[in-house]
Amino acid sequence: MTGRIPKETRRTKRRDEPTMAVIARLAGVSAPTVSRVLNGRSGVASETRRQVEALLREHGYRRPNALEPAPSIEVVFYGLEAYLAVSIMRGVEGVVRHRDMTVGFTDVLSRTASERPWAEQLLARRPVGVIAAHSYFTPEEHAMLMASGIPLVALDPSGIPPGTVPSVGATNWNGGVAAAQHLLELGHRRIAVIGGPAKSLIARARLEACRAAMDAEGVVLDERLVRTGRFFFEDGLASARELLALPDPPTAVLCGNDLQALGVYEAARQIGLRIPDDLSVIGFDDLDCSNWCGPPLTTVRQPFEEMAAAAARLILAFAAGETPQSRIELATTLVVRGSTAPPRH
Amino acid sequence: MTGRIPKETRRTKRRDEPTMAVIARLAGVSAPTVSRVLNGRSGVASETRRQVEALLREHGYRRPNALEPAPSIEVVFYGLEAYLAVSIMRGVEGVVRHRDMTVGFTDVLSRTASERPWAEQLLARRPVGVIAAHSYFTPEEHAMLMASGIPLVALDPSGIPPGTVPSVGATNWNGGVAAAQHLLELGHRRIAVIGGPAKSLIARARLEACRAAMDAEGVVLDERLVRTGRFFFEDGLASARELLALPDPPTAVLCGNDLQALGVYEAARQIGLRIPDDLSVIGFDDLDCSNWCGPPLTTVRQPFEEMAAAAARLILAFAAGETPQSRIELATTLVVRGSTAPPRH
Repeated sequence: MTGRIPKETRRTKRRDEPTMAVIARLAGVSAPTVSRVLNGRSGVASETRRQVEALLREHGYRRPNALEPAPSIEVVFYGLEAYLAVSIMRGVEGVVRHRDMTVGFTDVLSRTASERPWAEQLLARRPVGVIAAHSYFTPEEHAMLMASGIPLVALDPSGIPPGTVPSVGATNWNGGVAAAQHLLELGHRRIAVIGGPAKSLIARARLEACRAAMDAEGVVLDERLVRTGRFFFEDGLASARELLALPDPPTAVLCGNDLQALGVYEAARQIGLRIPDDLSVIGFDDLDCSNWCGPPLTTVRQPFEEMAAAAARLILAFAAGETPQSRIELATTLVVRGSTAPPRH
Repeated sequence: MTGRIPKETRRTKRRDEPTMAVIARLAGVSAPTVSRVLNGRSGVASETRRQVEALLREHGYRRPNALEPAPSIEVVFYGLEAYLAVSIMRGVEGVVRHRDMTVGFTDVLSRTASERPWAEQLLARRPVGVIAAHSYFTPEEHAMLMASGIPLVALDPSGIPPGTVPSVGATNWNGGVAAAQHLLELGHRRIAVIGGPAKSLIARARLEACRAAMDAEGVVLDERLVRTGRFFFEDGLASARELLALPDPPTAVLCGNDLQALGVYEAARQIGLRIPDDLSVIGFDDLDCSNWCGPPLTTVRQPFEEMAAAAARLILAFAAGETPQSRIELATTLVVRGSTAPPRH
């Protein structure tokens, strides 16, 4: 019985028939033909389509609100970082659009205190699944989402998500190793590392990977050249100002992400240092704007769009009752551009 | 009769009762209490909430698919420009989230030929309304959207949208005037203008506004210093290379947008010109990355988030059967940063 649509429901869905019937009569076509035009479907002769469209416009036809909307997958951001957010949204949308689904989003940080809590607001939208991108949930929020029965996947989580939460990440450690090896091969020995937030495990993985890669080559990471900070332009700028003012400044700086690297660019510019001649810089992420800074930034690419697509496929599998492989790491890649060169001395 | 929910419909919606009833019995609470927890609503004692959440998790409760999803507003982009797209999505979401709506999006340019046409796919999601951001529709696509009975609003359209389509834009002309006047006040006379695509009326408005503002001060815009091109970094770079190679190069460049301005930065860097000492540059848009380039970019700010919010409010008004004021222009603002200074000579 489950699959059948009860008659009553069918009848309420057809409240718009009179209007469609009127249009159909005026156009001299069947109501299903009008419906095809209304829903943008193919299989209507172009002359007929034009005629029906003109009549719909002329009579100010309005779609009844009774039609059921499409299901959605919601992406939760903790601060909507424009550069990553679009890649992530695009990756999710590419997977679900063939299923007539919508991709919604929530920016936790944009909420005001007077609003309903974001998790409550999110659940009220009744999504098919939730992708948490770089998000930090309180235990209460987490319990609420888990209890809702809606599949939840963590995307590029800053730590190891709780045991039951599937996740999609990138190989942060390998990326850190590749970046450090690139500088070592160019001949750098006095290398500074600007890490991410001290509590972020992905930031720690990058930082410790640099240390390990240097150590493996017999190069000791000078602790005075290590900084941590938020993943922001301003934090890269402040750290680089300190580093470049040292009596024995670094010849290269490894950054926790691209925004910090742009901050290092600005610190160098302010004191007249040229990149890469006087200072080499490496980022992490490969944002679009890494191509537009002068010189274009050498960085470690994270495949955000592919990671988001993988997260969306996990959601769809869970929603279909499957239990797919639920801990995925996609590869990072070193992208060598114009900001790295051998040291002067 | 219209507002009543038929009994049959109510019964099919309650197929999930058994599971909720089991959870309620185990927790020693009522089924509505379990429902409140499931939907993230307040009004449940925290101890009870924790207990119900634990039981839901333990029993692997899955939300039935029968629940109707939330309605959505869809934003259509023609090429998803990360820097603008997030502001626009944020603006729309800020307006509709209080109504438990989802903001979906479509990137027309990301479609492949083998897919269903994007307009057909969009309509299959049955949105409450469609916001077309910087979009170019074919007459067929336009007719299809108009005929669907779904409200359509054009956001920052590159031209004047067809008479019946409401639109929200920015004061492009005023922005162009403000930018040119700023350079004139600094003492520049040899000013180059890199415009947008020749067919884009918003780009034309900016270009012609510069010409008019200069003319009003008795300064003639040298036609050899005028370029047009797409709104991309590469177009700014190519145009600036030509301009800076002239025997009598400009002392300042007015750009059609910020990405072009970043291309001018790169052209200057490649030949060792310093901004603003040797060359002044002004952008248009005020993207985040305009703050991160060296030096920070003087630009004309477009209030994308506010524009998108206005478009969303128009959609909601139309969907509610109102006929609101349907041609809105929000003000642009000149933001003076570090890329403009008096000319050397």
